[in-house]
Amino acid sequence: MAAEPGSTHVIGPDSELGQVFELAQQLRVDSVRASTSAGSGHPTSSLSAADLMAVLMARHLRYDWQRPANPAGDHLIFSKGHASPLLYAMFLAAGAIDEQELLTTYRRDGARLQGHPTPVLPWVDVATGSLGQGIAYGVGIALTGRDLEKQPYRVWVLCGDSEMAEGSVWEALDKAGRHKLAHFTAIIDVNRLGQTGPTEWGWDTDVYARRAEAFGCRALVVDGHDLAAVDQALTTAADGQAPTVIVARTVKGRGVAEIADAEGWHGKALPDDLAERAIAELGGVRRLTVRGPRPPADAHPREPVGEMPIELPRFEPGDKVATRVAFGKALVALGARADVVVLDAEVGNSTHTADFGKAHPERYFQTYIAEQQLIASAVAMAVRGYRPYAATFAAFLSRAYDFIRMAAISQVTMALSGSHCGVEIGADGPSQMGLEDLAMMRAVHGSTVLYPGDATCAAALTAAMADLEGISYLRTTRGAYPVLYPAGEPFPVGGSKTLRATDRDQVTLVGAGVTLHECLAAADHLAADGISARVLDLYSVKPVDGDALARAARDTGALVVVEDHHPEGGLGEAVLSALAEHRQTPAFAHLAVRNLPASGTPDELLDAAGLSQSCITRAARDLIAG
Amino acid sequence: MAAEPGSTHVIGPDSELGQVFELAQQLRVDSVRASTSAGSGHPTSSLSAADLMAVLMARHLRYDWQRPANPAGDHLIFSKGHASPLLYAMFLAAGAIDEQELLTTYRRDGARLQGHPTPVLPWVDVATGSLGQGIAYGVGIALTGRDLEKQPYRVWVLCGDSEMAEGSVWEALDKAGRHKLAHFTAIIDVNRLGQTGPTEWGWDTDVYARRAEAFGCRALVVDGHDLAAVDQALTTAADGQAPTVIVARTVKGRGVAEIADAEGWHGKALPDDLAERAIAELGGVRRLTVRGPRPPADAHPREPVGEMPIELPRFEPGDKVATRVAFGKALVALGARADVVVLDAEVGNSTHTADFGKAHPERYFQTYIAEQQLIASAVAMAVRGYRPYAATFAAFLSRAYDFIRMAAISQVTMALSGSHCGVEIGADGPSQMGLEDLAMMRAVHGSTVLYPGDATCAAALTAAMADLEGISYLRTTRGAYPVLYPAGEPFPVGGSKTLRATDRDQVTLVGAGVTLHECLAAADHLAADGISARVLDLYSVKPVDGDALARAARDTGALVVVEDHHPEGGLGEAVLSALAEHRQTPAFAHLAVRNLPASGTPDELLDAAGLSQSCITRAARDLIAG
Repeated sequence: MAAEPGSTHVIGPDSELGQVFELAQQLRVDSVRASTSAGSGHPTSSLSAADLMAVLMARHLRYDWQRPANPAGDHLIFSKGHASPLLYAMFLAAGAIDEQELLTTYRRDGARLQGHPTPVLPWVDVATGSLGQGIAYGVGIALTGRDLEKQPYRVWVLCGDSEMAEGSVWEALDKAGRHKLAHFTAIIDVNRLGQTGPTEWGWDTDVYARRAEAFGCRALVVDGHDLAAVDQALTTAADGQAPTVIVARTVKGRGVAEIADAEGWHGKALPDDLAERAIAELGGVRRLTVRGPRPPADAHPREPVGEMPIELPRFEPGDKVATRVAFGKALVALGARADVVVLDAEVGNSTHTADFGKAHPERYFQTYIAEQQLIASAVAMAVRGYRPYAATFAAFLSRAYDFIRMAAISQVTMALSGSHCGVEIGADGPSQMGLEDLAMMRAVHGSTVLYPGDATCAAALTAAMADLEGISYLRTTRGAYPVLYPAGEPFPVGGSKTLRATDRDQVTLVGAGVTLHECLAAADHLAADGISARVLDLYSVKPVDGDALARAARDTGALVVVEDHHPEGGLGEAVLSALAEHRQTPAFAHLAVRNLPASGTPDELLDAAGLSQSCITRAARDLIAG
Repeated sequence: MAAEPGSTHVIGPDSELGQVFELAQQLRVDSVRASTSAGSGHPTSSLSAADLMAVLMARHLRYDWQRPANPAGDHLIFSKGHASPLLYAMFLAAGAIDEQELLTTYRRDGARLQGHPTPVLPWVDVATGSLGQGIAYGVGIALTGRDLEKQPYRVWVLCGDSEMAEGSVWEALDKAGRHKLAHFTAIIDVNRLGQTGPTEWGWDTDVYARRAEAFGCRALVVDGHDLAAVDQALTTAADGQAPTVIVARTVKGRGVAEIADAEGWHGKALPDDLAERAIAELGGVRRLTVRGPRPPADAHPREPVGEMPIELPRFEPGDKVATRVAFGKALVALGARADVVVLDAEVGNSTHTADFGKAHPERYFQTYIAEQQLIASAVAMAVRGYRPYAATFAAFLSRAYDFIRMAAISQVTMALSGSHCGVEIGADGPSQMGLEDLAMMRAVHGSTVLYPGDATCAAALTAAMADLEGISYLRTTRGAYPVLYPAGEPFPVGGSKTLRATDRDQVTLVGAGVTLHECLAAADHLAADGISARVLDLYSVKPVDGDALARAARDTGALVVVEDHHPEGGLGEAVLSALAEHRQTPAFAHLAVRNLPASGTPDELLDAAGLSQSCITRAARDLIAG
């Protein structure tokens, strides 16, 4: 794409670097204008990277600004999301937004130009702002492009230097190197200054370069303000030979003498008078337009995913089957859908994702023990239109909580599963027990939380997750328990199952997962004593079946909720919230893991935690006795 | 310490390597016996590291097995906590436990020899079992020993190769290199096989060595079964010149031909017959005792921390002061206690820990943007008897949730603070908003969760945290709000404050933090309409003041709970749990952040989320109208 003939205001791949410099200055000016108009933001962090981004967008980023969904288009991720003024200035230069939007809406109420970029903007793949995440998403997208989409796009990630202290960065670069993701480039804006002062490694660009190389990437050290050097580095990075880390030495606040390389200017908009001087020093307001490289036209369009019949596994009522086993079998069946992909963190033989790996190896991704990258890759695949299922032990999803939280802001649809929940796991001890996962996952915006009590339910919910919006979570149990439901039984999300009920029930026992089986046994004990107990399978923890709970409260007047989880934020409080909403106020007992568990058999540990059938029986009796 | 004269069964620093080999075989035999007797465990992962540990304990680990609290004693951390059979076999060899305990209690109900080591054992510093954490704790302890305790001890961490994929490992090694922690050594047991098959990098020991060096550590590659080479490497590591990573090539299942280097044997106890053959192949049961090196006797004893008067900062009622500012000022005052240490993750000017850094730089630790290491170092300092306060944005504590969860299993006492909670932060947008932190922190075993509404309360609670058992969490707010309480007002943990009350209140407004101020304003609006509203400051979220809530429920019959947090697991559900326990069932409204927030002013965002004074007023009116 040459510059438009006759126009001196259009910058393109063939423009002289002098013109690109003008673009860089425009990006600086607009970064200052946007943040000063908003009264907050990070202009100095934008100024340091303006030259890098000007060269990238004019000469290397193969992007269809008018059709960002073009499947062959490059991806640009601002891992340093606080440099949003620069990103939005690029949008303006590309003609994607207009000047009024930049200057009057940035950081304002309801605006899409938020303080940190999110995918409410069509040119943004993922939400950033939690540092150290952009490289991880970029690696995931590069992997998706090469191995799933077979598209020629490149992925460019702009990072700050401070965020290189995050371990997630190295989880990600390890994968870039291991998978030889030759279309991946990270650009580190080494501007030496973080939020509180000098960064850990200052301008020691060799530290970053050595590390990137040790992690299997090609490292290129450049002066980030030498446009020719930057252009050369980006050209090399785009040669398709190796994953690349460009280590660019830059100056924070570059171009504005009063604030350049000065401490105390992180995250501060320039006051009006200083902004005025800065804009003058930068050469004033420009109105350059960028027509950069376009995606290759011969890239194949994305194939639509057809409707495939899914033949779910069938389980015989009474047989003992672990819900994690049913999850694995259901995944294999779901593999009939070409958009379903599965990710493991080296526990696939425990979570049973490995079953999918055997059946559909081309859509099974091993991230090894790197849960942050596990989630980041799942987010990336979701962003690219796939339906990822990522699983590890429930306990170890806590390792990736920040990524899960951010995924909700990215508004992606992905399915997570955590196995080995609760004290039920037995001898391995508390480090392996998921006891906080319900609280953690319920608190995620827009999440769905599911906790099947048997294999039939687990398989049905696993299948349902493929079509749920947002982040869904399936909690599975280590041990094998009797199948309760016949094949074909429907399990609507937000529903529940009433397994025992009469019109003279004196109490309702509410369980999920392993505690459902304990509740059933407790109901037998109570029946032997002439007490009729209703039993509710609360397989849908969020949304929860408030109607059934309210009905049970009205009918029986007493609820015992039993959960293999710490008492806070899990099943019990989900029930209380639903009852409060329905203005039902039964007598209530809440059995949960209040102790610090140790090792033992599942039965011993359930009993020690007060969740066993005998504990439930006692609690129900006490409640009835009032 | 030479071997005891006349005894051929004692192995010590002067024993021949042939004797050390016998010790290694004993550790192998006992690892097999322990796990086979338990019927579960990880014998093959123990066998690979037995030679490494035999040389270490006989010749290098300066440890006082009879007095593990000896302040000069080395620290040994099993990051690969699943190799607990090996660790416990070492305890047996040291005479710390007896054979019966090993063979009849390991992994059994109530035993201290749990599936993964925890500090219920006096020779264990920290709980492990979530992989990738041991190096982080080890780095923290090495830093503590050198910079705080001034003790000569060395820290040895045994890691698996799989866990090197965790980013937390590289956060930690970065700090080992940066701080030049010359008394820190990590030993990587590169046995090539993980849980599901070959590890990411197999026996490519150079990959690990290159990375360790790039992160500023000395790397030594050895054959992990060549005792002389291992001894040489450990001798070098102990020279006090540099942080060291020993990359030891080993064989999983080493010493037992049927399972050596074989897939499918991870985490499986040997069946009885195979165990019998294995023990025979390993030379049968031995009864060797280790008398390894002892800690240097001239190390100074730990100085007791005297009772220091703390002069808390005073704030004038009506003045606008942010709770994070009060937190910082209180920390400065707490600095009078010599055991108080503070850790930052490069946001100290936002959380206000930086104030402490200026006042007490020798007890202020900058971990840069590495939240996992932030928590790991805090845990390490807690383990060594200090009272750490670690702070970052509430949102970014989610990055370290697995470390916080594990810290509860380590039963440490530490104080955390998360600033910038909720939509109140305004223009920066959702990536910076802590909206899951209450759920996350409440679900931690034994935690205390505090959320002050004004500066006086924040300062008092900050001081109280120094003497709280377990993990405590203080949630602070970005903006400045009026001081509500006079200096000296007591704020007992588990208490609350009733700010407005009459004997004809029709509704209770329950708030904390910023929503408390909105509740007060709403009470004014309601009063103008002739509706008398009680206002409760629920500054203690866990434990929560059930008595005051029950009283309010009884007195007013209606509660509106308002929280700047997602609806799950936070203030609202804490209140519901307390009311259920007290069998109180008022009319209930729960205002929480149910939307996905964007940018805006604090007022705009509170209103958009339904938390503003007008929303509260409306909810109260609706509730009263029934």
